[in-house]
Amino acid sequence: MSSIDQKAVSTIRLLAVDAVAAANSGHPGAPLGLAPAAHVLWSNMKFNPRDTKWINRDRFVLSNGHACALLYSLLVLFKYDLTVEDLKQFRQLGSKTPGHPEVLDVPGVEVTTGPLGQGIANGVGLAIAQKQFAATYNKPDITISDSYTYVFMGDGCLMEGVSGEASSLAGHLKLNNLIAFWDDNKISIDGDTEVSFDEDVVARYRAYGWNIVEVADANTDLQAISNAIEEAKKCQDKPTLIRLVTTIGFGSLAAGTHGVHGAPLKADDIKQLKAKWGFNPEKSFAIPEEVEQFYDSKIAENQKVYRQWQATFESYKQKYPKEGAELQRRLDGKLPEGWKEALPRFTPQDKAVATRKLSEGVIEALSPIIPEFIGGSADLTPSNLTRATGAVDFQPPSSGLGDYSGRYIRYGVREHGMGAIMNGIAAFGANYKNYGGTFLNFVSYAAGAVRLSALSHHPITWVATHDSIGLGEDGPTHQPIETLAHFRAMPNVSVWRPADGNETSAAYLSAIESTSHPTIIALTRQNLPQLEGSSIENASKGGYTLIKQDKPEVIIVASGSEVSISVEAAKRLESEGVKANVVSIPDFFTFDKQSLDYKLSVLPDGVPIMSVEVMSTYGWSKYSHEQFGLNRFGASGKAPEIYKYFEFTAEGVAGRAAKTIEFYKGKSVFSPLNTAF
Amino acid sequence: MSSIDQKAVSTIRLLAVDAVAAANSGHPGAPLGLAPAAHVLWSNMKFNPRDTKWINRDRFVLSNGHACALLYSLLVLFKYDLTVEDLKQFRQLGSKTPGHPEVLDVPGVEVTTGPLGQGIANGVGLAIAQKQFAATYNKPDITISDSYTYVFMGDGCLMEGVSGEASSLAGHLKLNNLIAFWDDNKISIDGDTEVSFDEDVVARYRAYGWNIVEVADANTDLQAISNAIEEAKKCQDKPTLIRLVTTIGFGSLAAGTHGVHGAPLKADDIKQLKAKWGFNPEKSFAIPEEVEQFYDSKIAENQKVYRQWQATFESYKQKYPKEGAELQRRLDGKLPEGWKEALPRFTPQDKAVATRKLSEGVIEALSPIIPEFIGGSADLTPSNLTRATGAVDFQPPSSGLGDYSGRYIRYGVREHGMGAIMNGIAAFGANYKNYGGTFLNFVSYAAGAVRLSALSHHPITWVATHDSIGLGEDGPTHQPIETLAHFRAMPNVSVWRPADGNETSAAYLSAIESTSHPTIIALTRQNLPQLEGSSIENASKGGYTLIKQDKPEVIIVASGSEVSISVEAAKRLESEGVKANVVSIPDFFTFDKQSLDYKLSVLPDGVPIMSVEVMSTYGWSKYSHEQFGLNRFGASGKAPEIYKYFEFTAEGVAGRAAKTIEFYKGKSVFSPLNTAF
Repeated sequence: MSSIDQKAVSTIRLLAVDAVAAANSGHPGAPLGLAPAAHVLWSNMKFNPRDTKWINRDRFVLSNGHACALLYSLLVLFKYDLTVEDLKQFRQLGSKTPGHPEVLDVPGVEVTTGPLGQGIANGVGLAIAQKQFAATYNKPDITISDSYTYVFMGDGCLMEGVSGEASSLAGHLKLNNLIAFWDDNKISIDGDTEVSFDEDVVARYRAYGWNIVEVADANTDLQAISNAIEEAKKCQDKPTLIRLVTTIGFGSLAAGTHGVHGAPLKADDIKQLKAKWGFNPEKSFAIPEEVEQFYDSKIAENQKVYRQWQATFESYKQKYPKEGAELQRRLDGKLPEGWKEALPRFTPQDKAVATRKLSEGVIEALSPIIPEFIGGSADLTPSNLTRATGAVDFQPPSSGLGDYSGRYIRYGVREHGMGAIMNGIAAFGANYKNYGGTFLNFVSYAAGAVRLSALSHHPITWVATHDSIGLGEDGPTHQPIETLAHFRAMPNVSVWRPADGNETSAAYLSAIESTSHPTIIALTRQNLPQLEGSSIENASKGGYTLIKQDKPEVIIVASGSEVSISVEAAKRLESEGVKANVVSIPDFFTFDKQSLDYKLSVLPDGVPIMSVEVMSTYGWSKYSHEQFGLNRFGASGKAPEIYKYFEFTAEGVAGRAAKTIEFYKGKSVFSPLNTAF
Repeated sequence: MSSIDQKAVSTIRLLAVDAVAAANSGHPGAPLGLAPAAHVLWSNMKFNPRDTKWINRDRFVLSNGHACALLYSLLVLFKYDLTVEDLKQFRQLGSKTPGHPEVLDVPGVEVTTGPLGQGIANGVGLAIAQKQFAATYNKPDITISDSYTYVFMGDGCLMEGVSGEASSLAGHLKLNNLIAFWDDNKISIDGDTEVSFDEDVVARYRAYGWNIVEVADANTDLQAISNAIEEAKKCQDKPTLIRLVTTIGFGSLAAGTHGVHGAPLKADDIKQLKAKWGFNPEKSFAIPEEVEQFYDSKIAENQKVYRQWQATFESYKQKYPKEGAELQRRLDGKLPEGWKEALPRFTPQDKAVATRKLSEGVIEALSPIIPEFIGGSADLTPSNLTRATGAVDFQPPSSGLGDYSGRYIRYGVREHGMGAIMNGIAAFGANYKNYGGTFLNFVSYAAGAVRLSALSHHPITWVATHDSIGLGEDGPTHQPIETLAHFRAMPNVSVWRPADGNETSAAYLSAIESTSHPTIIALTRQNLPQLEGSSIENASKGGYTLIKQDKPEVIIVASGSEVSISVEAAKRLESEGVKANVVSIPDFFTFDKQSLDYKLSVLPDGVPIMSVEVMSTYGWSKYSHEQFGLNRFGASGKAPEIYKYFEFTAEGVAGRAAKTIEFYKGKSVFSPLNTAF
């Protein structure tokens, strides 16, 4: 390594330090420690700052997202659409340099990180996607995809369970395209990591089936870092963990203490740093010309690689027109022709089926048509019904259990890992529409990942079966009560709870068409009848009137398994001379997007509205005046008996509807949809 | 081991099989594999079925809770308040034998399990509590506490990240009073564990710092199991993992397949099992007389141990009257005198302080008074402000960082593990009131554990700081939006968001008095003024009127940091001649419990109500007609600028209040608290 490398490392370090100082907020410690590894890695990575979505770029994930001043400095130096001026606006409202790396705000950021442990799990997803993509499209004579995923992570990431889940799976899957760097600086916010974290990380990762490479002095030994990456790339059958022994806040007067973790360096400290490294102590945000030239040459080299790949892709399209066209379609973000037509449709004459089974029907129907539709389950395949007949498992070929072109992922009992991996698969690009199955109740285990799906606009899908007390015997530990409220309250999440086959198809239609939000599809274990009046088109509005009476006295609005009960209740009321509309709202998120006129046609002024859903009523008052739900934990027993016990029957609903009518008699009633602002 | 042991093992196995068959639902596979270990362990455990809360009992946790037919069979055989008749009602509505072990429903169950990975983490909490309790009260001449915590867990538990988090901490803490058994049967729901889980578990646990003991044939080799337990108990400085190599569904015709995991055995299979093991194939739920006598003798032996301990405790109280009285008080579930008086109180003249800092003041005030008030933070101590001055860390004495009598726990970045460990500490008894700190947003990482706190009535407390966009620069990844809605929708959770010092004290008052629900206290990073009209007593109603006008035109209801903004808005409105009440609702859960009369005095008919909270409006319509909130993700920037950007200012609130008044002019307005049923 030459002196220019050292200069470049110092430049990265000082840009990060200056950014944090300018903001008077942020984390200088990790950038100071990790700059050498960042410099060496980025100087060897394959990417194109002018085409940040290039499918064969190497991906870089900063799992310890608080170190983003490091990443932003790299993006500036490698001339992404980010400048020193942006660095000066670090952590300011409206800037392109927010306090953690945000994929939507910062050009060149691959995944949003900050919540610890997510990034490394995203990295596993990126690596899975690359393997699947490469196995699907590479040919013996033409390689379309051979990119790597690199992850930086700190001790915090390694303490989080989600990273363990994903790393264990990565080892099983033998993802040798994944290279993770552990910033072993022995400091976290509470001080020395020895206060809570003295496990043998290297031994743990070896136990997961990872290849281990160690760099004894990653503060200064650039050659050792370079060698480590080379060694990692040689490994054919394992992901690699590169242990970087670093000093947090390297160079600072407070180096090696948690004082440099999350607070700006003092002005004097910054000055001595600059002086020590041959920079003007009075100048901020300096980029020496020779450093700029150095990185420019790297950019130019990569441009060549990029052009070469484009040429390769052109010849691929000529030689393999079918695959080439499919590839081009996927890179264009378009879905294949005819997939919507393949969605199952039902009439009221069709038999009663559990929506989890109807979901299986959709997966069966779409899998042959949409090659980018891939998914798996967190060890609940026979319960979630997530595997298409004849699917190939995504497995290392050496396992004899499948191969890398497989589209079915055995996640193991790792919901949080699965959620974060799904985000990584979505972040890879190539139009992946990936799903993961578990019980609805256990999507909560993955709340941290779901939140990042929503924030990052990843169009992933949770196939969330066993969606209520209707799962029966497993009892309260498994029966969701608050789960839908939780995700409905989360911005940018589509939370479907279909009532029958057509609504289930509509849920998948919405999920697969999405390019900007995740979807959770809550599905029953128990059978539900096919409803009169339901259709994919109706359900696609998120909410619609199933039973429409002239001058109804009450509107019953329900979701999922309670819709057919509400229909029965309405019939019961009708036999007693009471007119009730029934409205199905399978997805609040979609319904909210409809015009006010349409929504008011469904939930108009002048009629009391009662909601029915066999879980927390929390939030339903936005659509209704009265709520019938379950604001307690459930019970273990046969599902029909539990429903009866809690009065979720035609009788129970009709009785409450009658009370609602009585209560509002003579009062003026306004639709809750009309609001003052 | 004698033939009676073998007979006893067969009895356990067949009771479990019969229970599952009678229910036609449940999991026979794990009980068949684990019965030998269960028999050997329970024959050596210290407990008293007639005093299930005996503080020096050994604790048994079935982390793979789906195997509860095993546990229920043990409870019947050891003559807990559970009978064969209860077993016959397995998984039936209203029975004492629900589908997963529920601590509130089943006498002898220590913690509710089923959601995988929780039980082992609860076990770590139980072991921490035992260590802390023993270190606090044992004397050189009198041992009050020397119990063990035993955990059974399956592959599923080991795949979950929460178990890894807790196990890593257990290794760090050198909890040699924790002995966990891994049911290594190589089967999970998706089939052979090799499809997703082929890591080296033993090496991983060794890396965590655990002692490892292996039993090569735990299906039949009772002596080896007994030896393993003995060896585990010899270890002085590590928790032990006993690897039990078993066959799922041992003895069944489908043994070793996932077919026996979660479905009843076929009738023929059960018959051949019974015949093979010398039981009458036609008889169900058989308990051979000699087996009953055998277990009766074990019960009797334990009665002696129990009486001995009672005598020891009596002499302890005489010899150490101060500690003895404190111990007795704690065992009686009473709090010490004078603790409430120690809660800080404030007047409007007191300076503006962040509620996280006010929370620190409460912790400082109560720690010296309440010895069972212990807690920690998930590596955010300097941010959460959770550590009382001069606190001793709970650490293995050999670390030199603290000792086992320490009351401050360094959890590391392990929110989910912390949540589950807190449940375990609460489950230990001895009146522990334990808390854990993290950012509010990352309580979501622990959603699975919070749910079990609520379901199991564990009175634990989350000190959840950085509760809104008011945290500023860290940005959307750290700013809660949906978090409060999530936990407010969860049954039996008290979710406080105090607006000032008195409300913060009220939150702790509620949390520490709780014996049946967890509490989340959402606290600001930013300073808040001390409010006119707030008091511990007012806030203890969960909601109260801060500004009361004669004939108000609008009621502004808010929580936490938006209360003072709403007060400013009301003043602004008043200067414009508009009368506005201001209501603070620091805790929905507590407010909901007040009389309807009281609640209607706060939120009466006839006045439009507008809510103000700088996060999701979801759910606020239960208290208000109009909602001002943030139904999107936040932004990175300086907190005051973000508040201004989103219009959470006196002006922004007042403007919307004016629109609310305008909108409802001439309309009859009913309090949302009045409902039809």
